[in-house]
Amino acid sequence: MSARYVVVMAGGKGERFWPSSRLARPKHLLPIVGDKPMLTQTLDRLPDLAPPENTFVITNREQVEAVAEACPALPRENIVAEPVGRDTCAAVALASLLVRQRDPAATFAILPADHVIRDQAGFSAILRTAFSVAEAGPNLVTIGIVPTEPATGYGYIQRGGRLSEIDGRTVYRVERFVEKPDRETALSYLDSGDYFWNAGMFVWQVATIDKALSRHTPSLAKAMETVANGLAQGTSLDALLDNVYPGLEKISVDYAIMERAEAVAVVPADFDWDDVGAWPAIARHFPSDKDGNVLRGNALQEGGKGNIVISNADHLVATVGCEDLIVVHTPEATLVCPKSRAQDIKKLVKRLEADPRRQDLV
Amino acid sequence: MSARYVVVMAGGKGERFWPSSRLARPKHLLPIVGDKPMLTQTLDRLPDLAPPENTFVITNREQVEAVAEACPALPRENIVAEPVGRDTCAAVALASLLVRQRDPAATFAILPADHVIRDQAGFSAILRTAFSVAEAGPNLVTIGIVPTEPATGYGYIQRGGRLSEIDGRTVYRVERFVEKPDRETALSYLDSGDYFWNAGMFVWQVATIDKALSRHTPSLAKAMETVANGLAQGTSLDALLDNVYPGLEKISVDYAIMERAEAVAVVPADFDWDDVGAWPAIARHFPSDKDGNVLRGNALQEGGKGNIVISNADHLVATVGCEDLIVVHTPEATLVCPKSRAQDIKKLVKRLEADPRRQDLV
Repeated sequence: MSARYVVVMAGGKGERFWPSSRLARPKHLLPIVGDKPMLTQTLDRLPDLAPPENTFVITNREQVEAVAEACPALPRENIVAEPVGRDTCAAVALASLLVRQRDPAATFAILPADHVIRDQAGFSAILRTAFSVAEAGPNLVTIGIVPTEPATGYGYIQRGGRLSEIDGRTVYRVERFVEKPDRETALSYLDSGDYFWNAGMFVWQVATIDKALSRHTPSLAKAMETVANGLAQGTSLDALLDNVYPGLEKISVDYAIMERAEAVAVVPADFDWDDVGAWPAIARHFPSDKDGNVLRGNALQEGGKGNIVISNADHLVATVGCEDLIVVHTPEATLVCPKSRAQDIKKLVKRLEADPRRQDLV
Repeated sequence: MSARYVVVMAGGKGERFWPSSRLARPKHLLPIVGDKPMLTQTLDRLPDLAPPENTFVITNREQVEAVAEACPALPRENIVAEPVGRDTCAAVALASLLVRQRDPAATFAILPADHVIRDQAGFSAILRTAFSVAEAGPNLVTIGIVPTEPATGYGYIQRGGRLSEIDGRTVYRVERFVEKPDRETALSYLDSGDYFWNAGMFVWQVATIDKALSRHTPSLAKAMETVANGLAQGTSLDALLDNVYPGLEKISVDYAIMERAEAVAVVPADFDWDDVGAWPAIARHFPSDKDGNVLRGNALQEGGKGNIVISNADHLVATVGCEDLIVVHTPEATLVCPKSRAQDIKKLVKRLEADPRRQDLV
């Protein structure tokens, strides 16, 4: 069996969790759910898959020190910062380069840093199966979460024919990847049983993903070749990345590779999974009172329902007669937003970024 | 002409302006509208009516020092604290006692401490007319604000026949006092032209109000007689009030006297007037943006309308997609409440009072 590696993608800006999240303290560095940063929880989930020396975290320059603090078990050289963000395909190409430097025959998993998964045993078992599938042949392997509701906030993976039976699980070919559906379409996906949520988790051999990158994003592959050559000549990784990254194409791995590749497999996963994409999602992870209010910290509620109210310990946040509202208080700023408008928090953050008097709040 | 006095009633708890207002810092001690405490603004309005030595402020023990600070021009002995609150009729009886000690032949006005009136000249003129009416005969004189909208939050005064013409103004007998009406009734009042808002401003001779108190609230009159006797024997006012106040009937002057008395006059007043009874009212006194938002201090609004957002300078309060919401941030606490539920802020304050960990926020 070839060596197994895991690369965790920790580059998010976390603007959807403002004001708790900031550019330098995004969601994966916060204990949004649970009592450790989401990234730390993600790493705690990996011991059955790869040892710390085989685990990389890709982040950005602003967060690299905080990420290192959140990953005390990882060798410092396994934490790599992109000089600028160039979407997930560039990060995947970098991940492949990092793993190839250690072992060109390796297989590695790409995992997001900030998702909630409680079923540790289920997660380990499914990922081990995915490694086995990837090691068995030239497939790009995805994890497909079995949907539990007609979610409109996720992309879906439609399964094709049966590829193999591994560890007592049926693995399928992927028919196609589909964008976030509307409610009606999502209902039909749920009913059909043929669709899975795309959780952004992938497993593949270095050789397999490299071939796909060369074919579908040749400029990206060439740039990483330049980096590899530079490393061979003793140039530092940071300097090499500084040099090539600004010119890289900004494209997601889903769009650049997964939707175009031919040999793609999906391992259906029935472990609990939540990407906790925005404030309203956290209500799923905390107890609520009889009126459906989630109150965290020094929060008091008078005659309202369906609210999420979060305050730090010293400051009372009191809501009177509110419904389906998000209120988040931090020492520097307070957010008030209806749950239904949570997607607009990004717009607010963009305005803060553009305001010289307020950009330190981002 | 007999001497003129003014007694300002500054006993309110200000719970409707929580968290800006507190028990020891109620609305009349705050610059809710304008840049001075409402009480200071009230006193600044009086020079045409009575000199500072003829002006009293009745407050309570918790607020007496803060009130004295807000009234630097007033002799300290003119600031009198009730040991416990016993509603407005007891305060009127005390006011009458205080004025009578100075001049039994005097006429005095009772004025609330925390209303907004910008038309200083109009206010002075109407009040001088009211003094003239009171000095001319044994009437209890009220100020009736000419209504500008079908308000359901105020009591109304129905005028009766014409009493006299003074200073070019027609003064009317009062037909009756009516409680806060529903919307339909308020509309009919507005259309009729026969109804005024009851602003809680009264003018009368000491002898006239004393006679009314003796007739309609004899126990209250008797208690004040006891206080007067004690003062004559050299006992301190505070000690005497401590003695009698707990046993006093808790009743409003409107209910105890005005609704029962026979000789009541009303001077129609067309100066601007607003009792600023709760948070939603302050929107009338500050500029709003094109979407009807009133933003005070460090407040930022993204895609909402009709909100009132108030923050202290250091802390950003950002609202996203909110409508008709009140958000008030102070260093210790933040309130979020729909405008339509502002009356329930009192309930919240009662819960804070009952909570040992939170009663210091009241």
